[in-house]
Amino acid sequence: MGRWEDNAVGRLQEAALELYGDPGYDKVTVAEISERAGLTRRTFFRYFSDKREVLFFGAEKLEAFVMEGVLAAPPGTPALEVVATALAAVTRRSDEDPAFADFARRRHALIRTYAELRERELGKLAALAASAAAALQRRGVANPAASLAAETGVAVFKVGFERWVDDPRRRKMGHHLRQAMRGLSALALERATTGGTAVDNQ
Amino acid sequence: MGRWEDNAVGRLQEAALELYGDPGYDKVTVAEISERAGLTRRTFFRYFSDKREVLFFGAEKLEAFVMEGVLAAPPGTPALEVVATALAAVTRRSDEDPAFADFARRRHALIRTYAELRERELGKLAALAASAAAALQRRGVANPAASLAAETGVAVFKVGFERWVDDPRRRKMGHHLRQAMRGLSALALERATTGGTAVDNQ
Repeated sequence: MGRWEDNAVGRLQEAALELYGDPGYDKVTVAEISERAGLTRRTFFRYFSDKREVLFFGAEKLEAFVMEGVLAAPPGTPALEVVATALAAVTRRSDEDPAFADFARRRHALIRTYAELRERELGKLAALAASAAAALQRRGVANPAASLAAETGVAVFKVGFERWVDDPRRRKMGHHLRQAMRGLSALALERATTGGTAVDNQ
Repeated sequence: MGRWEDNAVGRLQEAALELYGDPGYDKVTVAEISERAGLTRRTFFRYFSDKREVLFFGAEKLEAFVMEGVLAAPPGTPALEVVATALAAVTRRSDEDPAFADFARRRHALIRTYAELRERELGKLAALAASAAAALQRRGVANPAASLAAETGVAVFKVGFERWVDDPRRRKMGHHLRQAMRGLSALALERATTGGTAVDNQ
């Protein structure tokens, strides 16, 4: 691979983000993205199967990272805490690297705009939850507790992430995730303590 | 509309389910589905925009039904209980109508098989959560509590639904949803009471 292909992924992603914003995701070809990045279509397809995948590069790494986090938690840690801690670790890169945070925000604006991207993002989040559930099971957490902790953790992450994207005060992603986790605890306790558990007792 | 178009939606859905199972979702055309149902392509497109939508007919009605359920809960009901109760009402049709339950199970088997269908299903669930959150806000629940209750409720519903699909004992969907809600309460209480809330206190 020649020097002119240095950081090909980053250059293609940046070119794609620019063109997906203007003229628009649906109006841009792989050839145009490659050209803007100063690379060939062939190089594009070495890294991405199609123009959608430019925005989802690294999703498998993220899954593996969360699984490792789940497996690394001290024995006896409550399942929901295990998932919350593993997902909190994900927020660190955005909170320590402003360029990465900026990329994440711009990427999310596109995902909100295009249903096709939104659905792919939801698919990746569902895969992340499935991986976290599998890792919890390897820790000895039975089902449905493992799936519940994983799906709930990812749901809370999603809410915290959206709050982070929309925060005019630009507080850190970790802050919003912690706030969302506290919010879930408050909701669950409220439901448990006010005796309003009609569904459970039917 | 002539008599020969009686129950066109049901006939097209049944024909599609059969053909999506064999020869397969990716191998079948709208013309073949219409022919199997004894209807024309024109009639197909009167109800569905494409072959994917056959499996998601009625999603808007479901959203409206859940919103109504959220708005109808007695004042002062905890937000998570409001969502759980509204989603529990959704299970009734499957639990009272074996043909509908059978349709839901066959449909879900296809959704599991094809990524394209899986992503669309996740998109519909996300829209359902957004509607439930909007309805909670109309009840005066602030954000992020409204989003958290809605997203968590839908996550729990998803787990309960999967358990129902896979249950060899064929217990009712309502049973699995209640069990999943109880499971979430147990996880949240375990996390709150063992002091294992490292994420909240960072």
